[in-house]
Amino acid sequence: MIETRQHLDALRDAMRRVRVGAVIIPGTDPHQSEYVSDHWKFREWLTGFTGSNGTAVVTLDQAGLWTDSRYFLQAEAQLQDSGFDLHREGIEGEATIEEWLVEVMGDENVIGIDGRLFSTVEANRLENFCAENGFMLATDFFPADSIWEDRPTRPTNPAFVHNESLAGETVDSKIDRVLESIEAAGADGVFMASLDEIAWLFNLRGSDVQYTPVTIAFAYVDKDNRILFIDEKKVTTEVSEHLNKYGIRVRAYDDVTHYLERIKDYHTVMIDPTRISDALSNAMQCQKIFARSPIAAAKAIKNQVQIEGTRRAMERDGAAMVRLFKWIEENSSNGINEIDVWERYKQERKRMPNYVGDSFAMICGYREHGAIVHYQADSESSSTLASEGLVLIDTGSQYLDGTTDVTRTVTLGNPTDDEKRDYTLVLKGHLALSAAKFPKGICGVNLDVLARMPLWQHGMNFLHGTGHGVGHFLGCHEGPHSIRMQINPTILEPGMITSNEPGVYKAGRYGIRIENLLLVTEGEHNDEFGEFLQFETLTLFPYDIRLLDRSLLSAEEIRQINAYHALVRERLLPLLDGEDAQWLNAKTQEIK
Amino acid sequence: MIETRQHLDALRDAMRRVRVGAVIIPGTDPHQSEYVSDHWKFREWLTGFTGSNGTAVVTLDQAGLWTDSRYFLQAEAQLQDSGFDLHREGIEGEATIEEWLVEVMGDENVIGIDGRLFSTVEANRLENFCAENGFMLATDFFPADSIWEDRPTRPTNPAFVHNESLAGETVDSKIDRVLESIEAAGADGVFMASLDEIAWLFNLRGSDVQYTPVTIAFAYVDKDNRILFIDEKKVTTEVSEHLNKYGIRVRAYDDVTHYLERIKDYHTVMIDPTRISDALSNAMQCQKIFARSPIAAAKAIKNQVQIEGTRRAMERDGAAMVRLFKWIEENSSNGINEIDVWERYKQERKRMPNYVGDSFAMICGYREHGAIVHYQADSESSSTLASEGLVLIDTGSQYLDGTTDVTRTVTLGNPTDDEKRDYTLVLKGHLALSAAKFPKGICGVNLDVLARMPLWQHGMNFLHGTGHGVGHFLGCHEGPHSIRMQINPTILEPGMITSNEPGVYKAGRYGIRIENLLLVTEGEHNDEFGEFLQFETLTLFPYDIRLLDRSLLSAEEIRQINAYHALVRERLLPLLDGEDAQWLNAKTQEIK
Repeated sequence: MIETRQHLDALRDAMRRVRVGAVIIPGTDPHQSEYVSDHWKFREWLTGFTGSNGTAVVTLDQAGLWTDSRYFLQAEAQLQDSGFDLHREGIEGEATIEEWLVEVMGDENVIGIDGRLFSTVEANRLENFCAENGFMLATDFFPADSIWEDRPTRPTNPAFVHNESLAGETVDSKIDRVLESIEAAGADGVFMASLDEIAWLFNLRGSDVQYTPVTIAFAYVDKDNRILFIDEKKVTTEVSEHLNKYGIRVRAYDDVTHYLERIKDYHTVMIDPTRISDALSNAMQCQKIFARSPIAAAKAIKNQVQIEGTRRAMERDGAAMVRLFKWIEENSSNGINEIDVWERYKQERKRMPNYVGDSFAMICGYREHGAIVHYQADSESSSTLASEGLVLIDTGSQYLDGTTDVTRTVTLGNPTDDEKRDYTLVLKGHLALSAAKFPKGICGVNLDVLARMPLWQHGMNFLHGTGHGVGHFLGCHEGPHSIRMQINPTILEPGMITSNEPGVYKAGRYGIRIENLLLVTEGEHNDEFGEFLQFETLTLFPYDIRLLDRSLLSAEEIRQINAYHALVRERLLPLLDGEDAQWLNAKTQEIK
Repeated sequence: MIETRQHLDALRDAMRRVRVGAVIIPGTDPHQSEYVSDHWKFREWLTGFTGSNGTAVVTLDQAGLWTDSRYFLQAEAQLQDSGFDLHREGIEGEATIEEWLVEVMGDENVIGIDGRLFSTVEANRLENFCAENGFMLATDFFPADSIWEDRPTRPTNPAFVHNESLAGETVDSKIDRVLESIEAAGADGVFMASLDEIAWLFNLRGSDVQYTPVTIAFAYVDKDNRILFIDEKKVTTEVSEHLNKYGIRVRAYDDVTHYLERIKDYHTVMIDPTRISDALSNAMQCQKIFARSPIAAAKAIKNQVQIEGTRRAMERDGAAMVRLFKWIEENSSNGINEIDVWERYKQERKRMPNYVGDSFAMICGYREHGAIVHYQADSESSSTLASEGLVLIDTGSQYLDGTTDVTRTVTLGNPTDDEKRDYTLVLKGHLALSAAKFPKGICGVNLDVLARMPLWQHGMNFLHGTGHGVGHFLGCHEGPHSIRMQINPTILEPGMITSNEPGVYKAGRYGIRIENLLLVTEGEHNDEFGEFLQFETLTLFPYDIRLLDRSLLSAEEIRQINAYHALVRERLLPLLDGEDAQWLNAKTQEIK
């Protein structure tokens, strides 16, 4: 921790030199990415805290780090003796960053930020906050560029083409559709910084970032221009040919500001102010239309090739899970621990065609570790399994033809009544959402309660979302839709994929979560009430029938479980041999 | 209709005189009321259309009236030969008022409105629309003041005091609470135009408007001033004493603009831009804070006296309904019609203590009339009942101690399978919402689907909201909360009353709606998951057990129906004698 103390001193020296009284340091990159490459892990370098969500704020005599409940324990440990106080977001009585700044700001009233790392919306909010409180906002304070010695360089991993046979649509077709939608809104160009949007639009992938197969770049498209701002080291011959084929010109990554500054003022460019940085948005002198990203909206709706690819990926993922869970069951009393489970799963998936890597950091939480929503086992914490208790495993893969994300909770033996009741309540919510039929035009918030009500009836709840979008060989978490208690006005449309993952967490005892991915599909249509939608369950792996409390299940729910298990058998058995197939048959036996 | 043609000519003459190219005429009053007194029924005078929701737009050579699906049939009939074309809101392909104006505006590019009748928000929206389309907005075009001969005067009915023994809180206490909440937001005064807010805050009532017992007034309150702008003819001795007691000064109704203009600029006044007219908002030269009404928020949460009063009002209302429905059943083959039902019900309620009047226009829809959501029987349309088919009755009363709103659908004999299936599905949704338990902090949109999913699973839906707030001897529809598919960020809190009224409408055949009022109450509290809320059902009248399809009901739902019927018996039998009591016992017999 002496190291981070020195980093903090260096930062304060830099602040004093330009008379900045406070600096706010987010954990993101110029692309507003969820996972960032090492080059942009300045907050981690400064504080020692490695969680994916956290913001550091430093004044000349105080320093704090704000993060959410997922990371309270981890941050507490990592911030010890770092000079940073932990601030727990969402806890009553805990000051927000703004409230804290009002409290602690000294005579120097300038708040410095790196405007390349704050979205336009966030920077505007800060600007207002400063105006209301007599502070000044300086958006050109770049301490990472000056004080961070040994800073990792920007990644230069080669990009690669995501074949049309996998993507299901040509770049021309995608660009045409996007231009059509922005023209309808009065724009003639669109600029994008989100790495997954660029990857989708240009059928390009990369390996610059952990878990999400994207390449670091910016892009601009209008009727006459298709520009990719990218480090030329990443442009292989294959990529170059692909870009040429679609008339996409390459410019240097660092050229983007200069290019935006020179877009002619007869252009009207659409940008999403939640996804474009304040610095880049300000660089544009042309007309701007701020709107929710039209690329994100198009990307969320999967075509038939993507859907079929995802279905096949689910079969491979399910077969690998059969082998993993069989191995766990057979070895739970042989001293294996949580990290061994992770290692074993990697081996199982590597055997599968099209497998590229994890889509996020696997969670394997035995007993009380399952109650820590984003638990990550390390060599110190990793629990040794035994032949009783619950284990929660949340994992996902990137296959060339689809991205997976699945959670199962299983008993290693002798389930208690509490475990069975809670598992059954979680499953009831999960089944209710899976079986939902709903009219076209509704949003995720309209369905969310289905997954929660069985828990609510018993005075329990879960504080995370019920469902997030999932990309196609792209981000495991993508928008714009979601299924949450919070309001998100995105309408659910056929072709969208969402997770369905209710859970319940009993601190110090166990956690339960059950997660499948669902595809929104067309349902019944009738003249009187219009078009209805429903879900197809994509994920293929049995629930744990040993954990069911039958007295809590209706006949219809039992029918639904049996029907799902029949589907799992039908789809996975062709990929399984001998004992693996027998194991699956036993796990999916009909219940009454 | 010759009459309305002449009115239209007179309006166009007035438009030409001041070179106004189009005028927009809403159906509301300077208080944004749902029901308005005759003095403000200019749109009705002009068009002949009497529905509660409708906006007329007149250019020099065209005229249209926009209304929603509740009023399509009525408007079609009433607008015949009026010179006004009907525009059906919410129908695909139908132009909005704005789209239509862009299409039809001639050389005169000024759009005139009476800025006293448009909320600040609506006027701003129009201002933007005009700016974008090269029109000018004139907010001082007042044709009603000049061309409406024989215009009814503003009502001068006496106001009266709503006793503290009924209201449950003194005016001082209410004002203290409101000032505390606005001070927390940085304001020191609050101005209100909503009649029900003024009635609540000052414990005053009146009879100026149909269905809602309010008196026409404006009000302003700060630490040093409590002003009621009201026609002094309405101020009786009793009211005057009451106002004096609480230091409320009376000023003339028409003084309000002058008063607002002179509020000193060291004051910061909170106004709700959806409830204060553009004219009054512009009159204020002091600092303004635009916010959702703090009075509406406080008014929505009923105190124990209001709750107990409402419970008693429900008993009286339920007893009156027993006598009504028994009479309908006994006379359905004796030639009675829909209007007779209404008349009979009025008689039954007039026998009840504390009864003041209807809380909205009763709906009695037999067979296909039930499918018209806001059907109003008149002498021409009124159907004669028979001993089969469904009848939907939606009615509500104003009692001094509470406001009621209840809908029941019953069979007059020989229910069909379709009728039973649809009734049972509607009831399942209604029961699911009644039984909901939910954590503190959620909104109506989080619960709405509970009332809809049984219908959605069968490809059916209803297009109105599931629940609206209800006042205490005040508006039968009040906010700020609601339970709808649409997003409303108001959090449900203990003490709020909401309706629970799913339905299904089969055009040309029948309509089914089942409505109870629910009270939000405290539920379970536990250390792990915090505080939960639930509902107490306030309305007391049996469901129609002859319309149940048992195969669609779970054991839990049957238990819930029996428990509700036991409650209805327990609470209503003390108010019923002999045959009425027998009838209720038969209607609430236990089902299996």
